[in-house]
Amino acid sequence: MKSVFGSPGKPSGLLLRTCQCLSASASLVVMASASGFSSATSFCFLIAAMGLEVFWSFGLACLDIHALMLKKDLHNHIFLSLLVVGDWVTGILSLAAACSSAGVMVAFIKDTDICRSQTALSCNTFQISIAFAFVAWFFLAVSSYVMFWLLATI
Amino acid sequence: MKSVFGSPGKPSGLLLRTCQCLSASASLVVMASASGFSSATSFCFLIAAMGLEVFWSFGLACLDIHALMLKKDLHNHIFLSLLVVGDWVTGILSLAAACSSAGVMVAFIKDTDICRSQTALSCNTFQISIAFAFVAWFFLAVSSYVMFWLLATI
Repeated sequence: MKSVFGSPGKPSGLLLRTCQCLSASASLVVMASASGFSSATSFCFLIAAMGLEVFWSFGLACLDIHALMLKKDLHNHIFLSLLVVGDWVTGILSLAAACSSAGVMVAFIKDTDICRSQTALSCNTFQISIAFAFVAWFFLAVSSYVMFWLLATI
Repeated sequence: MKSVFGSPGKPSGLLLRTCQCLSASASLVVMASASGFSSATSFCFLIAAMGLEVFWSFGLACLDIHALMLKKDLHNHIFLSLLVVGDWVTGILSLAAACSSAGVMVAFIKDTDICRSQTALSCNTFQISIAFAFVAWFFLAVSSYVMFWLLATI
């Protein structure tokens, strides 16, 4: 059985899930604490997508801890298929949310000057949250490729 | 050598590349012909990303035709690695462009009423172009998975 960086049930897999969970939580908390986030639908979508990523990654991190403690092998076909589907769905949703929020942010700052005219919007906080969302997506993308590779070579 | 749907140098691969090329061209032409597309940075990004996808898919469609005519086998490791990297980079850029444009579109229609107040913007045309961009991304995503699967199982 191949074991690459980020495999489920390995310390590197746990590290990757923890990074995903932490960066998605940071994005969610920063966005939810920014005033006026509900003014754009994309920002609400970002909160929902990051919430999904936090649940998914936290659940899998717990499973990794369980497997590490009991020295269980998680490399079976059905479990890997489930991880591939879940990782890809969550990954695509995270990227979609991060990109749509980034698009809206550029439109607010550069194309329409809404950020300058409506001072109630905390545009700097939105940008920090979007940056965290891209980081969370990057870690999830690494996991997704690893799972797909493991499933193809199992 | 495995041959799955969409393999390079096969009729299904050519079909997939043609669909990508046609839908990306449609998205590009519709967006470029819409009045006021330059008012949003995301729409310009969509044009650039669709342009890249048209070039990439057209080039690979020509290669598929060449391989079909000369009955060449394109399943070698270096060529597949190149296709995987190219497909994934183009795919992620296409999805990013489509999602950021969709985010801006929702912001223009629902969150800010810009579409209603600025009648010079052809918002319906923007939406058609974004829909084509998602279709183009879908076909490219299928190709990307097929190439990654072939590379992993080669």
